[in-house]
Amino acid sequence: MKAVLITIGDEILSGNTVDTNSNFIATELKKIGIPVVQILTISDEINSIKNGLETALDLGDLVIATGGLGPTKDDKTKTAFKEFFNDEIILDPETFDHLRKLFDKRNRGHLLELNKPQAEVLSKAFIFQNENGSAPCQMIRENGKIIISLPGVPFEVKPLIKDKIIPFLAEQFSLNHIVTQTVSVVGIPESLLSDQIESWELALPTAISLSYLPVGNRIKLRLTAQGKSKEDLEKNIENEVEKLKPLIGNNVISWNGDKIEEILKEILDEKKLTVSTAESCTGGELSRLLTSISGSSTYFSGGIVAYDYQKKIEILGVSEKTIQQKTAVSEKVAQEMSLGSQQLFKTNISLSTTGVAGPNPDEFNNEIGVAYFSIRVNDFEKTSRLHLPHFERNDFVNFVSQRVLQDLVEILIKEKY
Amino acid sequence: MKAVLITIGDEILSGNTVDTNSNFIATELKKIGIPVVQILTISDEINSIKNGLETALDLGDLVIATGGLGPTKDDKTKTAFKEFFNDEIILDPETFDHLRKLFDKRNRGHLLELNKPQAEVLSKAFIFQNENGSAPCQMIRENGKIIISLPGVPFEVKPLIKDKIIPFLAEQFSLNHIVTQTVSVVGIPESLLSDQIESWELALPTAISLSYLPVGNRIKLRLTAQGKSKEDLEKNIENEVEKLKPLIGNNVISWNGDKIEEILKEILDEKKLTVSTAESCTGGELSRLLTSISGSSTYFSGGIVAYDYQKKIEILGVSEKTIQQKTAVSEKVAQEMSLGSQQLFKTNISLSTTGVAGPNPDEFNNEIGVAYFSIRVNDFEKTSRLHLPHFERNDFVNFVSQRVLQDLVEILIKEKY
Repeated sequence: MKAVLITIGDEILSGNTVDTNSNFIATELKKIGIPVVQILTISDEINSIKNGLETALDLGDLVIATGGLGPTKDDKTKTAFKEFFNDEIILDPETFDHLRKLFDKRNRGHLLELNKPQAEVLSKAFIFQNENGSAPCQMIRENGKIIISLPGVPFEVKPLIKDKIIPFLAEQFSLNHIVTQTVSVVGIPESLLSDQIESWELALPTAISLSYLPVGNRIKLRLTAQGKSKEDLEKNIENEVEKLKPLIGNNVISWNGDKIEEILKEILDEKKLTVSTAESCTGGELSRLLTSISGSSTYFSGGIVAYDYQKKIEILGVSEKTIQQKTAVSEKVAQEMSLGSQQLFKTNISLSTTGVAGPNPDEFNNEIGVAYFSIRVNDFEKTSRLHLPHFERNDFVNFVSQRVLQDLVEILIKEKY
Repeated sequence: MKAVLITIGDEILSGNTVDTNSNFIATELKKIGIPVVQILTISDEINSIKNGLETALDLGDLVIATGGLGPTKDDKTKTAFKEFFNDEIILDPETFDHLRKLFDKRNRGHLLELNKPQAEVLSKAFIFQNENGSAPCQMIRENGKIIISLPGVPFEVKPLIKDKIIPFLAEQFSLNHIVTQTVSVVGIPESLLSDQIESWELALPTAISLSYLPVGNRIKLRLTAQGKSKEDLEKNIENEVEKLKPLIGNNVISWNGDKIEEILKEILDEKKLTVSTAESCTGGELSRLLTSISGSSTYFSGGIVAYDYQKKIEILGVSEKTIQQKTAVSEKVAQEMSLGSQQLFKTNISLSTTGVAGPNPDEFNNEIGVAYFSIRVNDFEKTSRLHLPHFERNDFVNFVSQRVLQDLVEILIKEKY
């Protein structure tokens, strides 16, 4: 079974909103062995939607469309589906009843009549009720294919997918498994890595595919296998990873992990180390990354965002003289910030960043794109400098934050803390 | 001129990476009046790429493809382009020279030979040199259409688009303008809003289109017009917005602004107010949002992420007794946190959050999805409670952070600070 996703919405085509639904749906489908072979992002117009459905049904057996189901006039998915499937729209008493309960629960009973059209569905459709919004999820089965229409709001999409669509699909179909393992490599350029593992790569069984995914200066090697027996797939991938060890062992910071904040969590939990942060140029992204992982409260104590340089002095104990002599964007200030954070939060590890994210220079006229970061692990300390003049503000923040955590992982592995 | 974007990469189809390039490219194209009519996300396979090119050229006059140009074996875009355009691949001396300089600058001269294939391009292509990576950007012109192939790494894509592709397109074509204006509405459900402005909406000139974009509990009404004269478009949109004022004036927090952090920046700059944050459940997202805006250092002093409750006591001065009596997730603690932040950073405004992001309950066994936030503006204070039990961890963090800033904007407007 192959899936095609259709994202309906001018807000994505116009660059106003980043499509995060597709990412979520693809991840969930992968878990039950359904690969997504294409994503179509189309305009909220009847003809685009009908053309999109045609293209999608050519490519996949399962089509999941999100968006265009709101109560307002710019939402046209239902009409497009009606025309495409040559169906009619009827008021579904069960959906209307569900809507009534939903509105009562939210003390919005007075809005029920106005939202009645939301209970109108395709006559052929099977309905998955939406517990978090007024647009129901509809499923059509035609010519052995399944077409599902969902609302576009992410917090409505996620529970519908996770609690209703995925269990339904998993039960109805005997599905393949997809197993992936990600090896994280640092300190080697992509071309050299590719050269070093060439004979291994060429000898991979055809059932295993390999991708190279650069993230900052880390390269993720992802092995993917698909088939009936999960155990076999896992064993096969493990065998191949074993063969990699003598080839690139020294450059690997994780043999099985994807996001750097997840890799770090495993190490910190195992070593029982705590972390705090003192951020300037990353503006809170470092602590946001660390706390994005459930369970991070066991090792993350807290952080300071000292944006104003006076606060670096007052809260983190950076010396005024250092700032006068070296400016706030300097190796010395990064070091004093991480020291301050380690002392204030009483953690084993502390991380600090200071730099100029741009596009405007800072008050000391430091060069845009320069960043210093300091990593302390007990009494070990390492400061590094980055120079990223071509990066947009938010890319700069993301790159620096990723790099700090990546270097911390490397230190924790190599320095044997 | 209409554009279609093609995103090539299994890492996006598999749900591992969120596609941010399309968003960036669509935004930049809009600025020079080129609308994106479809985005195709496809697999890194020769046939998918060829089919994608065919679909895209059916729909658009300009096709921009990103991805699949790395030096490794999983990257197949160049071969697919060669086959699709019936062309041959040649070593381009100019591109090779550029590559040499790039490697020399990075002290990676020893890797030049290994990367030589990166200087091989389609014989028909015009080359835009890539200053930040080894894959050049190629442009093909055929049957009056333009097809551009870019690498996939965001920090290579952005400068290529901004500094090379957009200036080229703007100079070559006499283009339309696209003008948009976004009105932000709060405190009214979408169905009621749609009802209230129905006659206005139905009377909109056909050249102006309207979309409703809900973000948390804010609704963005976006008006878009496209045409030859930028001035006329702006005047027409302004006229329509004027007519909206008597209809929904009381519910509007911004007549022309999109992101809440941008709307807030304007107000804070105008009123010369400063802000600090004390975060628990949002883990740094609130300060990341505030600092994502260039120029935010004039009003944002800094923030504390007090994840560990002891740090709420030690750094923010929350009383231990309050935590014992009410737990760390309570109205009282939110209030004490914002007070602590206001005093520590000496700012006019302070914002605090405390809650349970889940999926695991906190150490006090508070309910998952509960959050309290406190907003202080000088001696004014307001605490609110949210209950979002169905939200995934990161959606919860985003929703709460957006809501805090939105409520702050509302307070600053209505309370006349």
